[in-house]
Amino acid sequence: MPGSCFGEFLTVSTFGESHGTAVGVVVDGVPPGLELSIDDIQRDLDRRRPGQSLVTSARRESDRAELLSGLFEGRTTGTPIAIVIRNEGHRSSDYERLREAFRPGHADWSYQAKYGIRDWRGGGRASGRETAARVAAGAVARAILAGRGITVTGYALEIAGIRAGRIDLAAIEANPVRCPDPEAARLMERAIAEAKDAGDSVGGVVEVLADGIPAGLGDPVFDKLEALLAHATLSVGAVRGFEIGSGFGAARMRGSVYNDELYAEDGRVRSRTNHAGGVSGGISTGERLVVRCAIRPPASIARSQRTVTGAGEPVEIAIGGRHDPCIVPRAVPVLEAMVALVLADRLLAQAAISQPLDRDVQGRPAAGTSHRPPPPAPNGR
Amino acid sequence: MPGSCFGEFLTVSTFGESHGTAVGVVVDGVPPGLELSIDDIQRDLDRRRPGQSLVTSARRESDRAELLSGLFEGRTTGTPIAIVIRNEGHRSSDYERLREAFRPGHADWSYQAKYGIRDWRGGGRASGRETAARVAAGAVARAILAGRGITVTGYALEIAGIRAGRIDLAAIEANPVRCPDPEAARLMERAIAEAKDAGDSVGGVVEVLADGIPAGLGDPVFDKLEALLAHATLSVGAVRGFEIGSGFGAARMRGSVYNDELYAEDGRVRSRTNHAGGVSGGISTGERLVVRCAIRPPASIARSQRTVTGAGEPVEIAIGGRHDPCIVPRAVPVLEAMVALVLADRLLAQAAISQPLDRDVQGRPAAGTSHRPPPPAPNGR
Amino acid sequence: MPGSCFGEFLTVSTFGESHGTAVGVVVDGVPPGLELSIDDIQRDLDRRRPGQSLVTSARRESDRAELLSGLFEGRTTGTPIAIVIRNEGHRSSDYERLREAFRPGHADWSYQAKYGIRDWRGGGRASGRETAARVAAGAVARAILAGRGITVTGYALEIAGIRAGRIDLAAIEANPVRCPDPEAARLMERAIAEAKDAGDSVGGVVEVLADGIPAGLGDPVFDKLEALLAHATLSVGAVRGFEIGSGFGAARMRGSVYNDELYAEDGRVRSRTNHAGGVSGGISTGERLVVRCAIRPPASIARSQRTVTGAGEPVEIAIGGRHDPCIVPRAVPVLEAMVALVLADRLLAQAAISQPLDRDVQGRPAAGTSHRPPPPAPNGR
Amino acid sequence: MPGSCFGEFLTVSTFGESHGTAVGVVVDGVPPGLELSIDDIQRDLDRRRPGQSLVTSARRESDRAELLSGLFEGRTTGTPIAIVIRNEGHRSSDYERLREAFRPGHADWSYQAKYGIRDWRGGGRASGRETAARVAAGAVARAILAGRGITVTGYALEIAGIRAGRIDLAAIEANPVRCPDPEAARLMERAIAEAKDAGDSVGGVVEVLADGIPAGLGDPVFDKLEALLAHATLSVGAVRGFEIGSGFGAARMRGSVYNDELYAEDGRVRSRTNHAGGVSGGISTGERLVVRCAIRPPASIARSQRTVTGAGEPVEIAIGGRHDPCIVPRAVPVLEAMVALVLADRLLAQAAISQPLDRDVQGRPAAGTSHRPPPPAPNGR
Repeated sequence: MPGSCFGEFLTVSTFGESHGTAVGVVVDGVPPGLELSIDDIQRDLDRRRPGQSLVTSARRESDRAELLSGLFEGRTTGTPIAIVIRNEGHRSSDYERLREAFRPGHADWSYQAKYGIRDWRGGGRASGRETAARVAAGAVARAILAGRGITVTGYALEIAGIRAGRIDLAAIEANPVRCPDPEAARLMERAIAEAKDAGDSVGGVVEVLADGIPAGLGDPVFDKLEALLAHATLSVGAVRGFEIGSGFGAARMRGSVYNDELYAEDGRVRSRTNHAGGVSGGISTGERLVVRCAIRPPASIARSQRTVTGAGEPVEIAIGGRHDPCIVPRAVPVLEAMVALVLADRLLAQAAISQPLDRDVQGRPAAGTSHRPPPPAPNGR
Repeated sequence: MPGSCFGEFLTVSTFGESHGTAVGVVVDGVPPGLELSIDDIQRDLDRRRPGQSLVTSARRESDRAELLSGLFEGRTTGTPIAIVIRNEGHRSSDYERLREAFRPGHADWSYQAKYGIRDWRGGGRASGRETAARVAAGAVARAILAGRGITVTGYALEIAGIRAGRIDLAAIEANPVRCPDPEAARLMERAIAEAKDAGDSVGGVVEVLADGIPAGLGDPVFDKLEALLAHATLSVGAVRGFEIGSGFGAARMRGSVYNDELYAEDGRVRSRTNHAGGVSGGISTGERLVVRCAIRPPASIARSQRTVTGAGEPVEIAIGGRHDPCIVPRAVPVLEAMVALVLADRLLAQAAISQPLDRDVQGRPAAGTSHRPPPPAPNGR
Repeated sequence: MPGSCFGEFLTVSTFGESHGTAVGVVVDGVPPGLELSIDDIQRDLDRRRPGQSLVTSARRESDRAELLSGLFEGRTTGTPIAIVIRNEGHRSSDYERLREAFRPGHADWSYQAKYGIRDWRGGGRASGRETAARVAAGAVARAILAGRGITVTGYALEIAGIRAGRIDLAAIEANPVRCPDPEAARLMERAIAEAKDAGDSVGGVVEVLADGIPAGLGDPVFDKLEALLAHATLSVGAVRGFEIGSGFGAARMRGSVYNDELYAEDGRVRSRTNHAGGVSGGISTGERLVVRCAIRPPASIARSQRTVTGAGEPVEIAIGGRHDPCIVPRAVPVLEAMVALVLADRLLAQAAISQPLDRDVQGRPAAGTSHRPPPPAPNGR
Repeated sequence: MPGSCFGEFLTVSTFGESHGTAVGVVVDGVPPGLELSIDDIQRDLDRRRPGQSLVTSARRESDRAELLSGLFEGRTTGTPIAIVIRNEGHRSSDYERLREAFRPGHADWSYQAKYGIRDWRGGGRASGRETAARVAAGAVARAILAGRGITVTGYALEIAGIRAGRIDLAAIEANPVRCPDPEAARLMERAIAEAKDAGDSVGGVVEVLADGIPAGLGDPVFDKLEALLAHATLSVGAVRGFEIGSGFGAARMRGSVYNDELYAEDGRVRSRTNHAGGVSGGISTGERLVVRCAIRPPASIARSQRTVTGAGEPVEIAIGGRHDPCIVPRAVPVLEAMVALVLADRLLAQAAISQPLDRDVQGRPAAGTSHRPPPPAPNGR
């Protein structure tokens, strides 16, 4: 597969360039009969949309999603769901000057090396705009998970070196940086404003939690749950690192500390600590899933930078246009979407393993006699 | 795919349990005509083998690889290469007592939750022994890369909190912990010995470099090179975190620092720094690839630990047998193998994109007339 | 993958229902730099469009394709090409009466059994309308093949038991049934008209040829070229049988007759007969590719038929609306598209096998020194 | 994937050359807890084995299967099952003379064109010997199907133009040609003997039935059940054509005849005829599955044939060695295996679609409260 497709059971194929006609996604493998509306999708898109506050890009995009297929009378039918989001607010003229130069920190040079051709307007396919399609797909995944009582929540754990001191999930959407610690949020906002004033940008860390995951999801060996989650989150352009549970901290622990002590509670196996982050041997334990992603500072900055053109000429460039001084707040719904897509995919995958032999093809109790071979039809066989 | 297969163009399927008959791997997609011998494979297997030194498990396994297919007269034929490594040194009796208990830090509980059945002898499929098959496959990948001048080198960057102060690649294989800093290596050895004496275990960080990668490998969007590398390395059981380039450090940099300045040299685009770790927008830049993996302390420790049985009874267990007090040195060849597999896979993938129209199916210059439609054959069409 | 995706290197994902908002397709893996325009796509769509003549459905659809992504300045960029075709001429009211009944010969019952829900308007996803998306994708595949001198041509070999006596490729598009024998074409037209007058429908056989295929395409074992072609063509709803070369005729030949005698001509290996149909051991021989597909008579007929409702009640139904009395002529461009998609996919696949070691990532001669490891960047590695 | 792998949920990877060390297969995705023994596999292998009677090759192979992994205490564990069959009876010397010549009807030339290298001993990977691995995998698939009451039965419908007049399933294994009509069987045996005496070979038609399939298996669009079955069966080297249900006969029927009339019986929807062969719109109807495959005469014949060498020199060859004058009887278990693999794969696939929301990961009734989010663990999240 050439790279624009993700998932095995719940598959997403995204398309579209930053300054082309539209971005969009086809989501296939959605179980039939699920209630779903365009509003479920629009809600998450609005969280990713630019122009939400002073800490995000001023590019104006209404990001209106249009559903082209896969629903009938308010329910999914099991067929592919196509969603298109037309591009509106792009100003290619902002990029005209940059046509020849490879922007530092951007993928201009590597795309040119790979394809020998590139849509230089706004980064084309490498633009963060592609993630709108992921968020739309993630909303479908969330609807699948909701039916099993699984929720996915992300937040800014750290921005510009400022770390949340406490995790109050109710506080996340109440501040523009999506930080679960209101006090840290204020400091983060200020740090972003300072970087912006200096024509610069800052990074941070997003943490994503998932609750309600049954024990037993994920596959051993190459498709361990953490491997799929790392794949999914590192496929988001700005992510440079990934941790599950104690992550790099585990490298400095002793086994006697790291090993989560197990106990039984209400007939379930639980662990007293969760250094494993909800996954053991690649398979969910039933404890809370905890992953963290390092987000780099955005590449587009107003300050002057040295680089080269395609012809090898050294140049200095300052990137105008309307760019995010910090991508962390908008990365939160994107990373939630990627985690939700992995979990929904594995939830469907698990069904193939636990295939109940006493169930019919729609998962209803199978009458013992219903699958008996029918007598030969009149044409002899 | 049910999880035991990896790669798209160069695919590996591993099989086998720790205490079963054998572990092994089928490698498919290897280009034809490549010189390859069992010695190439055995060399890497010997680096992963237990019983190499005091810092590794005393389990004795000769780990002799047998080649079953895919070679003819010393060269690959383009058909699948099957490699089998028979199990020898296992002592299932070591595990008999642990049959009922879920070992803390191990995948006993999550496997049981997933499958409802498990081979409890030595961890079965979740055992690190499965990685022998990966190392064998990685040796095949290395041979493909070598033909393009690409090398992959890993080492212990940190063990038990002790970090290498300098990177002398020549020093790596000269000490039992595979550390590129001989002085740090001595401290690491001592720390491992102390942990072992305390019936405990320690973790660390492995860094893997790859040199000689051409610009243009990797795919945009979901199959970014760093996403595939994260998937590959986090699929190794003990890995809990992944970084590319500056990794989590990037989260605290400003854009003006993080962005690697580009310049031209000998007709190539180069960067003065390499915070990106050799990948931009998911595609290789031509600079050195740099990834780091957090390795947790091994789960099997001699100290007594509290846990539960399958019946929910609390028990205390102390794990005997012959276990590694630190897995970092043996993880080095495993992670090198995973990085090599990803790079070889993407090298083959790139050919489909750059498909030279002036080449025939074997990559030789195509005579313009050689593909003209032949005249109809006697049967009319 | 949930069934709406096809291909490995050149992948197509179709979406959309007969009476929904739109049908469409995402084509990924298209090599960059290929000249392509909406007209190339529209041309093939117009050949499949309903309302072309008296032998096809009177449903009026302009079938205007809109390109949403993947092109820049008239060339492909290597990114996904999304194409949307909005539905216009549907009259769901035609189907209102059929809401409860399972139409004989249609997929109403099997879809209901599978999903427990279905879009009953015009067959939903099971409608032949989905093939418009395939034809659009096929036009992209044709453009790839054209660059290698490969052409794909289909025609009605047989309709209603009337078989073409001679194969004049120039005659195909000159008659409404797409038959290469003008005389047989007239008889076929008449037979279709008679069936239509009787409120009935007829089937036939489509033959597809491909010329200019180099020897060496296709893969051994499970992905033999004929296996992929059979998969591709039998995925078209009306196809009930497939043959390559002599097909079922080969079952009655002796080996001494069937074996194609080989000889050398202009430095190429040729065969005097072509019973193999251009494929041997799953791999193209360089001779003309010849496949045939059996097309069933359309299920929707005006004559009264007995069937049951979802509640199990017996009913009689006569299907009104505007239906094709014979689908063969419109199946021709659809089957050409499927054959073109397989050939383009395998053309790209072959590049991964023949990966020229002396070529860079864009297929240009690689300077021996250009991939040497660069000196360590300032951050130490 | 490079062609040696098949299936999505139940995946098989075969390896091995005719005259190499061994052939074998890795089967992944087998549900855990299934009773399985080496005898189940050996039974089917023995039906494919050469040397069974005068109508098959005299090559002596015991075809002893060895199980390397995936079973524990007589049951599957959900991990990959590796099976190896060592080669014994090969005499490479038989082929030494053929080293330079491209045998007519064989894949010598196309393999050479593809890979530029080939194992010329006995056809290497293109040999029918590879199908032993498929039969072993098919035995695993059969065990999965048996648990759901699904059976797969194949037989020689036609050999050398002689067609079975009646279908007595009990008669199949009672004659060496596996024909369900004992009288026709005798004529077939004689025809094979005559061809052999003439240094020639004959083909035929294999029909495979499957009973007990629930309605709802298979996927719409590209992965229709008949498309997967055609892919599976045409991937067997000798197969040149495929039909489902009425097949090519459907091309000459009118819609009013072809459409299977539906009725209700015991709460199930049934059809009075089965022209559809058990599949409608790509999805099983619950009626008997009926497919037919055209088998070409074997390429290796004793009669002298004209061909060319790799150097382009014309030569005459007569192929000695021990070859089957008719492959149809031995193709029966191979085609049964391929049909069983497709059905088992789709049975597992269907579970992902019908994912019962009231079931836990092992398919047991889920307690409403069991998946509630646990309280945060002591490390804060």
